Amino acid sequence: MDKIKEVIDRIRPIDKEIMVETQKRLDNLTKPRGSLGRLEELARKVVAITGQRDPKFKEKVIFTMVGDHGVVEEGVSAYPSEVTPQMVYNFIRGGAGINVLARHVGARVKVIDMGVAVKIKNQKSKIKNFKDKKIGFGTKNITKGPAMTREEAIRSIAAGIEVFEEELQGGIDIVGTGDMGIGNTTPSSAIIAAFSGVDVREVTGRGTGIDDEAFNRKVEVVRKALDINKPDPDDPVDVLAKVGGFEIGGLCGITLAAASHRKPIVIDGFISTAGALIAVKLAPVVKEYLIASHNSAETGHRIMLDYMGLRPLLDLDLRLGEGTGAALGIGLVEAGVKVLTQMATFDSAGVSRGIL
Amino acid sequence: MDKIKEVIDRIRPIDKEIMVETQKRLDNLTKPRGSLGRLEELARKVVAITGQRDPKFKEKVIFTMVGDHGVVEEGVSAYPSEVTPQMVYNFIRGGAGINVLARHVGARVKVIDMGVAVKIKNQKSKIKNFKDKKIGFGTKNITKGPAMTREEAIRSIAAGIEVFEEELQGGIDIVGTGDMGIGNTTPSSAIIAAFSGVDVREVTGRGTGIDDEAFNRKVEVVRKALDINKPDPDDPVDVLAKVGGFEIGGLCGITLAAASHRKPIVIDGFISTAGALIAVKLAPVVKEYLIASHNSAETGHRIMLDYMGLRPLLDLDLRLGEGTGAALGIGLVEAGVKVLTQMATFDSAGVSRGIL
Repeated sequence: MDKIKEVIDRIRPIDKEIMVETQKRLDNLTKPRGSLGRLEELARKVVAITGQRDPKFKEKVIFTMVGDHGVVEEGVSAYPSEVTPQMVYNFIRGGAGINVLARHVGARVKVIDMGVAVKIKNQKSKIKNFKDKKIGFGTKNITKGPAMTREEAIRSIAAGIEVFEEELQGGIDIVGTGDMGIGNTTPSSAIIAAFSGVDVREVTGRGTGIDDEAFNRKVEVVRKALDINKPDPDDPVDVLAKVGGFEIGGLCGITLAAASHRKPIVIDGFISTAGALIAVKLAPVVKEYLIASHNSAETGHRIMLDYMGLRPLLDLDLRLGEGTGAALGIGLVEAGVKVLTQMATFDSAGVSRGIL
Repeated sequence: MDKIKEVIDRIRPIDKEIMVETQKRLDNLTKPRGSLGRLEELARKVVAITGQRDPKFKEKVIFTMVGDHGVVEEGVSAYPSEVTPQMVYNFIRGGAGINVLARHVGARVKVIDMGVAVKIKNQKSKIKNFKDKKIGFGTKNITKGPAMTREEAIRSIAAGIEVFEEELQGGIDIVGTGDMGIGNTTPSSAIIAAFSGVDVREVTGRGTGIDDEAFNRKVEVVRKALDINKPDPDDPVDVLAKVGGFEIGGLCGITLAAASHRKPIVIDGFISTAGALIAVKLAPVVKEYLIASHNSAETGHRIMLDYMGLRPLLDLDLRLGEGTGAALGIGLVEAGVKVLTQMATFDSAGVSRGIL
């Protein structure tokens, strides 16, 4: 917990003064004031987060955190757990949705095994885009007890911090978060229900695509997990340990570390946001570093975003996870920053200002 | 009108069969069915429009159509008309919002003078990203009579077709539409009011940023323009001539020509959509070729999109025009196509399929 506390202590509020100064610069560009809407907001925010007046976008990194979930034995997912490691190999080979969309925006993908239920063969660490930070071989079934021990929850957050700090050696200008793990919408629903008190049915969705029967079962599973574990909403580590997941802990760690190093964090869907929510619960100022990329088709996601006061950039009915929405979000953030750094001013272009 | 009729006659419905086939291909990729939401919709649509199973995205072109408006003398804009040519020079030099965002998505910008009120000096046509297709030196004041003659309206549409066909020599895989012209939200409001019958106040916005007084004046101006000109909603050319603009006619022509050549058309905000709406009124099948990039801060824009049954991709409070939203939209369309053409299949990646 010392490592986590140290990171949290380093996180400062973003620079509000430079934000005002940046809006003045934006108002001086050849366009009506505020006419680039949320692109201008993104530019202001990135400047205030990084403290750089002309933020660079060379190194874009998407962390795809992977873990398995014991609760899958309750029949809450449309896919079997064996898909989790299969998808890890797919990520490593570059054939998954996140690989395609990350390439589209010029980002690199790092795949982290936080708790896959089987050993991932990584050929003597020759694979550069993969890292083994396994905390355990999948979580325990949360309808029968806690997902993990408190000590494992702390280790999963610390591992996320480590991953970030190791990757920082290669340079990071902006971070995207992503996830993979069959069954991981179930703990995410439990997490937002635990913190917000919103009814379980309202924060539970159809994940990868379950039918009505499985959906009703999933709602009961989440209720049972909360009843049996009684996670303490005032103790975020307790919530993570009781009803969370190893990759969710890792996502929390990535988020804390990125904020402590003043990097903008573009969060993806339901699971990435669950990780960010735990980070915000540990250190509320982290919220200022978050950019919500999209509004997931998972109903609980919007409730999480509202709970943190975040407005998503995109609403494209995405529900894949992996960081796919974050990749698209990174493209928009970069567009906003380019507006700030590349557009001509009224003076330089010889354009008249408004008359009203 | 013969040229326009000939183009319209060439426009065919998009290929619905290949759309079904494409969804089958999408369902075979390593992701839950439909989990990439609207990105999948975009991929299907581009395949159905182009007829290409693996659409190429090499040549992306944004047409920024420019014109002035006599109605500006009624005090409907926050900027003076002199800004129109100033912005043309800004486009040519690459310093405007559209230049920045087009570069961001790898698109080229073509600036077309459809009716700027002064002569644009183009140094003996040495400037490659500019074209002179001027129909007139600004439209007439629509509160006093028609914006242009019927013959000019036809010539403006034909000029848009010409622009597209000339540019096609250099290759076009996808088209973005954009506009510039101080005062051009006023005719756009008049156009949607004329076609839809929706109350003028509901389709009138604040353009580049006018105050309450100017807004009320603008509403009265649009009402007066409709009263005095009585555009016939069953005759799209009449609507364009009476209350339109030269750049709106040009946008209509670009849209018709692109559809006739089976190119996806990513429309921008209020004015680009007004041009597309006239095209759809002339040839309803054109609608199938349109992709709405964003929901403008101009209230009338959403009413236009609803009227045509189009759902925008982005909602970023943009209200700049120029094609800026279309540029971002092109980036998303390309992302959708890459999902289709670059992702691994369940078989190739050795990933198990769903069990429910």
